[in-house]
Amino acid sequence: MVGSTMSMGSEGVATDETGGLISASKVNGTNVYNTQGDSLGSIYDVMIDKRSGQVAYAVMSFGGFLGIGEEYSPLPWSALSYDTRQGGYVVKIDKEALEGGPRYSESDYDRWEDPEFTRGIDDYYSRYASLGGRAL
Amino acid sequence: MVGSTMSMGSEGVATDETGGLISASKVNGTNVYNTQGDSLGSIYDVMIDKRSGQVAYAVMSFGGFLGIGEEYSPLPWSALSYDTRQGGYVVKIDKEALEGGPRYSESDYDRWEDPEFTRGIDDYYSRYASLGGRAL
Repeated sequence: MVGSTMSMGSEGVATDETGGLISASKVNGTNVYNTQGDSLGSIYDVMIDKRSGQVAYAVMSFGGFLGIGEEYSPLPWSALSYDTRQGGYVVKIDKEALEGGPRYSESDYDRWEDPEFTRGIDDYYSRYASLGGRAL
Repeated sequence: MVGSTMSMGSEGVATDETGGLISASKVNGTNVYNTQGDSLGSIYDVMIDKRSGQVAYAVMSFGGFLGIGEEYSPLPWSALSYDTRQGGYVVKIDKEALEGGPRYSESDYDRWEDPEFTRGIDDYYSRYASLGGRAL
């Protein structure tokens, strides 16, 4: 899909999203693909910076059944680009890199309180820049 | 609760949130109070700016039963302050002002595609500044 950033904005309006805004509940559940078009999983939740209101991380979920045994991989929000054609987010990260990255289980949610944890996410993914285009 | 912005950050860590980050799924469902401590409703969802990843609006829900007949009132995110004591958001907006503000029903979700709608929200609440303190 070729177009300027402006025209992408109007081309890319799917039925479940608006031109400039999307609800958190619609972001959650959206598929994430690598640049080859392989599905890497889906977005489970987004982490919002309390002070600024800025989305800082997308949390991807893997495996598990009805939430049991599920594992979560946080990605810096800036690593995600929205692809209107696939109707999902694309990351320049392959499956192996994702599997080797920071992850946690539901019972470890309090790891978010540890600045070392978020620093570790940022460091691990620092080599993966955004694909450009829209951030969401 | 008296303290600098920095100390509020550590004092204010509830069991279901981290120091600097909160998940969208935990924001959703959080109570909203006016400055007198009366409950105005709860947060149903947040609207995220696709381009910047910034939370732009909190959507409050009212009435209805199991989602039927429910009505939604969007507030500019900047109008909300998080109160650790009450464990909810506080807005400098009274019930009457909220009731007189822009609202929509579930079937009207596509109103978010209309720039006039978001402009109307911003204009209506432009007189209500944040209470200061943390934005979330």
